[in-house]
Amino acid sequence: MKVGVLGARGKVGAEVCRAVEAAPDTELVASVDAGDDIEELARSGAQVVVDFTHPDVVMDNLRFCIEHGIHAVVGTTGFDQERLDRLEEWLAGSPDVGVLIAPNFSIGAILMMRFAAEAAPFFESVEVVELHHPDKADAPSGTARRTAEMIAAARREAGSAPMPDATSTGLDGARGADVDGVRVHALRVRGLVAHQEVLLGAAGETLTIRHDSLDRVSFAPGVLTGVRNVADHPGLTVGLDAFLDLR
Amino acid sequence: MKVGVLGARGKVGAEVCRAVEAAPDTELVASVDAGDDIEELARSGAQVVVDFTHPDVVMDNLRFCIEHGIHAVVGTTGFDQERLDRLEEWLAGSPDVGVLIAPNFSIGAILMMRFAAEAAPFFESVEVVELHHPDKADAPSGTARRTAEMIAAARREAGSAPMPDATSTGLDGARGADVDGVRVHALRVRGLVAHQEVLLGAAGETLTIRHDSLDRVSFAPGVLTGVRNVADHPGLTVGLDAFLDLR
Amino acid sequence: MKVGVLGARGKVGAEVCRAVEAAPDTELVASVDAGDDIEELARSGAQVVVDFTHPDVVMDNLRFCIEHGIHAVVGTTGFDQERLDRLEEWLAGSPDVGVLIAPNFSIGAILMMRFAAEAAPFFESVEVVELHHPDKADAPSGTARRTAEMIAAARREAGSAPMPDATSTGLDGARGADVDGVRVHALRVRGLVAHQEVLLGAAGETLTIRHDSLDRVSFAPGVLTGVRNVADHPGLTVGLDAFLDLR
Amino acid sequence: MKVGVLGARGKVGAEVCRAVEAAPDTELVASVDAGDDIEELARSGAQVVVDFTHPDVVMDNLRFCIEHGIHAVVGTTGFDQERLDRLEEWLAGSPDVGVLIAPNFSIGAILMMRFAAEAAPFFESVEVVELHHPDKADAPSGTARRTAEMIAAARREAGSAPMPDATSTGLDGARGADVDGVRVHALRVRGLVAHQEVLLGAAGETLTIRHDSLDRVSFAPGVLTGVRNVADHPGLTVGLDAFLDLR
Repeated sequence: MKVGVLGARGKVGAEVCRAVEAAPDTELVASVDAGDDIEELARSGAQVVVDFTHPDVVMDNLRFCIEHGIHAVVGTTGFDQERLDRLEEWLAGSPDVGVLIAPNFSIGAILMMRFAAEAAPFFESVEVVELHHPDKADAPSGTARRTAEMIAAARREAGSAPMPDATSTGLDGARGADVDGVRVHALRVRGLVAHQEVLLGAAGETLTIRHDSLDRVSFAPGVLTGVRNVADHPGLTVGLDAFLDLR
Repeated sequence: MKVGVLGARGKVGAEVCRAVEAAPDTELVASVDAGDDIEELARSGAQVVVDFTHPDVVMDNLRFCIEHGIHAVVGTTGFDQERLDRLEEWLAGSPDVGVLIAPNFSIGAILMMRFAAEAAPFFESVEVVELHHPDKADAPSGTARRTAEMIAAARREAGSAPMPDATSTGLDGARGADVDGVRVHALRVRGLVAHQEVLLGAAGETLTIRHDSLDRVSFAPGVLTGVRNVADHPGLTVGLDAFLDLR
Repeated sequence: MKVGVLGARGKVGAEVCRAVEAAPDTELVASVDAGDDIEELARSGAQVVVDFTHPDVVMDNLRFCIEHGIHAVVGTTGFDQERLDRLEEWLAGSPDVGVLIAPNFSIGAILMMRFAAEAAPFFESVEVVELHHPDKADAPSGTARRTAEMIAAARREAGSAPMPDATSTGLDGARGADVDGVRVHALRVRGLVAHQEVLLGAAGETLTIRHDSLDRVSFAPGVLTGVRNVADHPGLTVGLDAFLDLR
Repeated sequence: MKVGVLGARGKVGAEVCRAVEAAPDTELVASVDAGDDIEELARSGAQVVVDFTHPDVVMDNLRFCIEHGIHAVVGTTGFDQERLDRLEEWLAGSPDVGVLIAPNFSIGAILMMRFAAEAAPFFESVEVVELHHPDKADAPSGTARRTAEMIAAARREAGSAPMPDATSTGLDGARGADVDGVRVHALRVRGLVAHQEVLLGAAGETLTIRHDSLDRVSFAPGVLTGVRNVADHPGLTVGLDAFLDLR
């Protein structure tokens, strides 16, 4: 399978290039970054493009791919409903092309979020703890927010009761942030990379689901899974889950 | 719903009695233990019987229940294929009666095993660590063995490669026990109750699923789930999973 | 050694009675609670009294003990500097009597706090996470606050730099409570008992010190350590540490 | 302070060079590796040499340093009593020179081992779990063995009873390796780097001390601590502990 990479000189893009070259069934035919000619993707015969660029340019990149019949696997952020609607429109004119937009390519992170949401209605209490290096600007992390939203949605659907909490005195912030009724705690500690723990509890027992991301290479297997499957999923897909063989 | 308890004066049975009395939708109508008259179950009008007794007596208990049209939720151990076949035979003559045989009523433990098996094919390495108080006679625990077997089965079905392990020198036992190709480690530490951790790893990331059972009461919600649903599942069911609303 | 227990019918007091009776070198000679005659302590020949009562009565109890030459091991809370000064005064008149006031008798908790404070100056970042059942009224716990204060004091003394934290956007409370510059996070999850984790990090490594208290009996060995040693420490001692054979 | 590095082109040595250059109070004046002229160390005016080379050459390197009045901080392995005796002899002729031999420069690992040994006599049970990537050849790790030996020595000295373990049936290896009566378990999981956990337990409570080494740079602060202090410790010192301001 012939693969082009957009954002090829960025940290993640460079890692993607290495993974595409290393895999036995994929071939890197084009490495494009800001300042390069995007036409190179078409000239090189790329069947799938991986895009880790920037919200400012990703829509132009995707229009080019769709118009040229090239499937796309996208890790760039910034997709709101308006952008997704526009992509659907463009894809309607190229019904064979598949585009995958994935906020997270780490299979461990995806499973952590799914399992947390699936288990949430069976427990009285659920809280989220995320732990990162202290150079991170946002707290809590985007992944922690999404996890809490998924937990809250699963509990709403199941008709779960609000979580018990008898706290009556204390210090501001001790009980963390409230995301849709789920408490989220953010630690910032030198030496850490990116970690998250979901703690679920019922009378006499707890279940803990933890994901540790220790190295950027953890994205690579998920990106390759996207590259290998996107052609079989024409149209727009959001979330790598759809390509994993999960129940 | 009228509930009778067999083995009512045992540690677990007594806890079940308390839970049945405390729940708003169940009523404890008979508490029977060794030396008591089992006919009490029928006289009391029990619709469901919970059995936490002993392998020596459980088959007689179940024959009585099935003959009297009483559903049964069974936590007693010792069911081999021969016993399950005999139960199926008896149930064929009472097609409305439901019997649930469950090796584990802790919802946290059940989810831990399911998630571990579901995630196992997505990772290069999977190991199991179980931690218990030092008065336990068997190592590893039955739950750890079953978890390892489920992990091995899921990987076989998915065609997963054997796990990497470059160990060439070392001390006997350091790498744990081998259960179907899955390494299982058993810790025995005073102060612990019953805990298990499944550690899954791929390049750059790990996923950890941990269950902590801190109190015998953790069985109660699972038993009540069995009691509430067994009448809707006539015939023989093995494993509480079937009654949980999981995907 | 002859031991009396004040507050003998309370949850902790009853556990202390059991431990005193079970130990080979201590004998329970008086069990006194509200409504009983405190003179019983003197009549029974108690050499040491253990007090788990209430801030309202503990000072009267201690005056009685000191006047009667009985050593005291005290787990009751509510001692401020004024009360400690008063005790010192009373003890000046009974120079052979020893009184131990200990906010925590769990040896695991004491070591966790000591190690956290000792290690704190060697790491760039230190945060505290405490985890309890959701019926707890205060957040963070008193132990977590004390731990954070000890960490902050150790870092001040060593001249440690403030901890790095680039958080610029986020949700209120996500970064926990600030206790003397140390971030403290409080989780409230059904099924938990009393747990605390101190996470220390420097470039490329983290050190985690965690204490899990799973059962009230964890106080007993510390109380017995107090009982056995208080006679050898005349005067006032605050904190069980002084009786432990630590470096 | 003028610093030379021996083994400067090895993985660890290169990291040491970077750290020496980055610190405000140290200056890298010589980078020497196999094939280079060791006289460069003397010509460059190095006051301290850091040696991460090989057991085959380290003794020659140290003789050179001692003869030239250069202090040495040594991370190279392979020092037995015979080698240490020889070093003492050489140093007797250069009484101002300091040599530090340290098996581990990670401050987190050093503290983990110290705390584990200090706490061990206060608990009934102590076990060690080490977790590494699956390309590691030895199981358990050298650090885990040393930790277990330190725990066993501390318990022997304190007269601790043997640890309780009622295991009577099970699978070979489930209970780990036995190092001086301390059970040691080794996990090998892709995605992990180098991690170790010491679990201590008494009635109703456990204390866990865990070290996670996520990046080779974790050695750097310890090496710099050695560099800055070795001149103030003439003679032979084994173990970085002696230079840390610990109780």
